[in-house]
Amino acid sequence: MHSPLRVNGPRLMESIHSTCEFGKAHPYGEHETETGMARLALNDDDKKVREWLIKQVKAVGCSVTIDQMGNIFAVRPGRNKTAPPIMMGSHLDTQPTGGRYDGILGVLAALEALRTIHESNYETEGPIGLINWTNEEGARFPMVTVSSGVWADVVPLETAWNCREVASLSQHSELKTMKEELIRIGFLGETPASYKALPIGAHFELHIEQGPILEDEGQKIGVVTGGQAYSWFEIEVKGQDCHAGTTPLASRRDPLLAAAKMISASNKIARESSGLITTGILRMEPGSINTMAHTVQFTMDIRHPHDEKVSYMVEKCREAFDTIATKDSERGVKVTWKSLTENMAVSFHPDCISVVEKSSEEVCAGLMKESSDKVLWRHMTSGAGHDSCNVSKRCPTGMIFTPTRNGMSHTPDEFCSSEDCILGTEVLMGSVLKYDILRAQQGQLDQ
Amino acid sequence: MHSPLRVNGPRLMESIHSTCEFGKAHPYGEHETETGMARLALNDDDKKVREWLIKQVKAVGCSVTIDQMGNIFAVRPGRNKTAPPIMMGSHLDTQPTGGRYDGILGVLAALEALRTIHESNYETEGPIGLINWTNEEGARFPMVTVSSGVWADVVPLETAWNCREVASLSQHSELKTMKEELIRIGFLGETPASYKALPIGAHFELHIEQGPILEDEGQKIGVVTGGQAYSWFEIEVKGQDCHAGTTPLASRRDPLLAAAKMISASNKIARESSGLITTGILRMEPGSINTMAHTVQFTMDIRHPHDEKVSYMVEKCREAFDTIATKDSERGVKVTWKSLTENMAVSFHPDCISVVEKSSEEVCAGLMKESSDKVLWRHMTSGAGHDSCNVSKRCPTGMIFTPTRNGMSHTPDEFCSSEDCILGTEVLMGSVLKYDILRAQQGQLDQ
Repeated sequence: MHSPLRVNGPRLMESIHSTCEFGKAHPYGEHETETGMARLALNDDDKKVREWLIKQVKAVGCSVTIDQMGNIFAVRPGRNKTAPPIMMGSHLDTQPTGGRYDGILGVLAALEALRTIHESNYETEGPIGLINWTNEEGARFPMVTVSSGVWADVVPLETAWNCREVASLSQHSELKTMKEELIRIGFLGETPASYKALPIGAHFELHIEQGPILEDEGQKIGVVTGGQAYSWFEIEVKGQDCHAGTTPLASRRDPLLAAAKMISASNKIARESSGLITTGILRMEPGSINTMAHTVQFTMDIRHPHDEKVSYMVEKCREAFDTIATKDSERGVKVTWKSLTENMAVSFHPDCISVVEKSSEEVCAGLMKESSDKVLWRHMTSGAGHDSCNVSKRCPTGMIFTPTRNGMSHTPDEFCSSEDCILGTEVLMGSVLKYDILRAQQGQLDQ
Repeated sequence: MHSPLRVNGPRLMESIHSTCEFGKAHPYGEHETETGMARLALNDDDKKVREWLIKQVKAVGCSVTIDQMGNIFAVRPGRNKTAPPIMMGSHLDTQPTGGRYDGILGVLAALEALRTIHESNYETEGPIGLINWTNEEGARFPMVTVSSGVWADVVPLETAWNCREVASLSQHSELKTMKEELIRIGFLGETPASYKALPIGAHFELHIEQGPILEDEGQKIGVVTGGQAYSWFEIEVKGQDCHAGTTPLASRRDPLLAAAKMISASNKIARESSGLITTGILRMEPGSINTMAHTVQFTMDIRHPHDEKVSYMVEKCREAFDTIATKDSERGVKVTWKSLTENMAVSFHPDCISVVEKSSEEVCAGLMKESSDKVLWRHMTSGAGHDSCNVSKRCPTGMIFTPTRNGMSHTPDEFCSSEDCILGTEVLMGSVLKYDILRAQQGQLDQ
């Protein structure tokens, strides 16, 4: 059984690529769409695409509210006009060397769903709409998912407003705050950025997977059941700088060798725990070919779908690093742990997961004829952070993943095929319409 | 049996510390001698200490020759006045954060030996003297042991003259060449810097060990039998930068994890081969907590007293790295080796080793009364490069090591006790006097 409505695929793709004119950068191929993006939050290109978006949603019967963080809420009324809207949210800002799909797909798929619903004169039970969340990337203003964080009351408004842009990405002589830039581009709204002032009935987000699983498995849709817990640490290893030619191995306390063993050990622990541990930064001093380092610092990004497994991995790493520092060849090095951030796992709402599952089934059923009887969707955990993780604290939330070529994102050649963008959009629209019916059946719309 | 001559210990130490006024830096303690040194080759302090040295050697009957590299040759005639002199050589330049003993001890011990010999009216069989080699450290002008290299005809004169100072150590707006600075401080001599123009009968160098072995073993003198072979490499590992939260371990080609395993593997190979392998520099890109690197570069300094063992360790590392790159968890990373330098092992001359052994025996015999019957000297291989390694290519050469506190050098608190400086000086003087007699006995001084 198919969803009765089908989105307009070519129009979706045209919207993605025409709005990518606002901020396109880093060409990597011959075709005009073979470029990346550098649409940093609240810059002139972001202003242009925001103004374009508002025009489009108004054309399909939406009312628009801008909150104090510049989040754009577009709501199309249903039979019931006062219930909290079911929202499709994502973000239009990008990394400085970003691509055309991360965030952008989610917002423009939401627009395409609204256009389809509007054109077909489909009357939903309650209000539905879309959200463009401000500065999700945290690239220009270094706080990721900051504006959904303010909405969910996990980030104070003043902290967010005063967040200052990073120097390397600034085009101004003076570094601007988010509030200054919200004012400059005309997107500082008056409505509080708060789940109390702007309640949401449910939140659905379509996003590229940003990993290789769907592609590797030959599947089309990820039904996201939650977001991983993750903790970040900086580990410092202090040893003794000595001459590489005159210091016997037995006399050494080489912090780089110790760090190398720690990084290997952490990877083994991640494997054994079915989690992820990654070292993305390693620095050493002084850095001379024939002198050992005296100090090495490295980061660890530790993730697992379950909070207690992250704690377990941290504990196992502490034990392993202590052994390396006290019993192994470089014993005597000093190890210090600094916690940088700690994020609990997020579980999406069973009702949201359920409607995404059903919608995925229906949409994928249309493909089954051509392929085998392989199941084309799967449950997944979001590895990365998303606005939906904040939003899920305040309303039922679900996410949908689409395949990502080579698992690559945050790079100009980040790619999701038109076919997959369209499939994902249909799953998103189907999920919202099913949830709309579900909550009516549950009596949530009764006055 | 003691050497008949005893050096003047207090005078030696006074010379060391008074000349360290020329270029002292980096105080680390309360006492006025508790500072390091920053006497970079051919700077104004180097000029001052050179002029002081020339005055001192002339006072003990030496004639002085400055060659085209600013090397100072001071020769005191013996009964035979034409034979190539037996020289005691080292260097007066230091690292930018150097200490008071590396090189300095060797030159001022030589001066103390000449003073002692002169005062006692000891007439040697042939000429003896001292050498101050220019820019041994390679710190200001980035070619280590460059001027003994020119003398030994392993470095072309023009290459050395045109060697330009490193920017971070320059006090000039324009970076100077060695030749420009030799001219500026008045030390560009006319005599060719060549073993042909300035032949040497034998070369002895007293130097701090720069390693922990003597201290750890409670011994006083190292009789150096040669210098290690060493090779330097830069290894590049290229993988795939991916999102730390969304990329399963099985899909990764993490070059940092691969490099960590390679560094661990190289250490194991060094242990099994009784050699040394050190990684002193590791760089990675792009360097973001939640993104794997795409490229890692690290250096390897590989050393062993035997050339073939260095080759063996290189071969074993190539095999181990290939296995990591093709069969281990991060298989698919690309490994590239770049050779930076390759240095054959040096064997010092049996006659030189023999006289140093005998002199060590005699000098240490004086200490035996106070301690047990422990042997206080030992054979050693020089881990670091020294001017003596170049010189040994053109004349019989030997080296003597003294203990170094904590094995630390190239640091302001580098330290060799007065007792050990004096003992080393007596071994140096004794070795030269024994070699002087030996070559007379061998008939080398016969016309």
